[in-house]
Amino acid sequence: MSKIVSVGVSGRHVHLTQEHIEMLFGEGYQLTEFKPLSQPGQFAANEQVAVVGPKGEFAKVRILGPARPASQVEISRTDSFAIGVPAPVRESGNIEGTPGIKIKGPKGEIELDKGVIVAARHIHFHTSDAAKWGIADKQLLKVRVGGERGVVFENVIARVSDSFALDMHIDTDEANAAGVKNGDSAEIVE
Amino acid sequence: MSKIVSVGVSGRHVHLTQEHIEMLFGEGYQLTEFKPLSQPGQFAANEQVAVVGPKGEFAKVRILGPARPASQVEISRTDSFAIGVPAPVRESGNIEGTPGIKIKGPKGEIELDKGVIVAARHIHFHTSDAAKWGIADKQLLKVRVGGERGVVFENVIARVSDSFALDMHIDTDEANAAGVKNGDSAEIVE
Repeated sequence: MSKIVSVGVSGRHVHLTQEHIEMLFGEGYQLTEFKPLSQPGQFAANEQVAVVGPKGEFAKVRILGPARPASQVEISRTDSFAIGVPAPVRESGNIEGTPGIKIKGPKGEIELDKGVIVAARHIHFHTSDAAKWGIADKQLLKVRVGGERGVVFENVIARVSDSFALDMHIDTDEANAAGVKNGDSAEIVE
Repeated sequence: MSKIVSVGVSGRHVHLTQEHIEMLFGEGYQLTEFKPLSQPGQFAANEQVAVVGPKGEFAKVRILGPARPASQVEISRTDSFAIGVPAPVRESGNIEGTPGIKIKGPKGEIELDKGVIVAARHIHFHTSDAAKWGIADKQLLKVRVGGERGVVFENVIARVSDSFALDMHIDTDEANAAGVKNGDSAEIVE
């Protein structure tokens, strides 16, 4: 049985705590939805911020909602060189020891003391998908995309939950290196 | 026998004809060497140009010398989105049907009518290396790099010549997707 998953390409983005949202956009401010994401309840917000590193900045970085318990900035390795922030490859949420960064909003700015990561590639599995394919939470998979820039990605982290929808997430470097665009298919080969 | 090759990461760069060099830098101008490259006789020049697309520009793009029979601009796919030039993946020199671009130098500017490519990943083999490993010119190889962002690159083109030195060339998207830096090693696995 072929194990085919759709691929979602993540551009640079920001997750913020409600406290940080209010420091950047004003007291009591609530994120507003621009469009839903593949994972249930998650959305791209209309709100954007500037992310400022020592060597450069990105003026308009999308916030993904809803608000989270910790603020986090996800960039590609290419981005990390462009703005001079040596972000390590990490799973989302695992931000201890990562570099900080300045974030500017329309009503204020904040200085994160940590939280800038290059997101480790991963696949979200609903529990039923993982069971059907014999895949365990945290398992490291090999996933192939074909085509003229065909690539097998190793160390793709399986993340299994009743609240997830089946989707593979890679960043823009990975997508561009493999010639993949949003909605393309990949195959779990091992 | 393990087939290990060193990896060279190519940033965006330009190759120019002598005629174009003179249109950009002045009559009779000769490129000057900044540093030698891995391939015998090739060098990074001190000279840089601006490369201008419809959506953005790169102000300082290195010229690689010596002068060539046709001008060519090599960018990553990330770059192609940034400046709005839909460059296809091509082998160096295969520029028919590719997009053009404006190039600006200190003494003039030119409008290429073709020549912007994303370089297809490839390995330069000296004839003796290829013979030792049983690899033919134009053969498509699979090449693995390990580490936390481990990747197997498919469709890596073998290029065999007495004038080449053994080296794998990938672009910045590929390097960043695989967590590879200049001088790292990769293994030909198939």
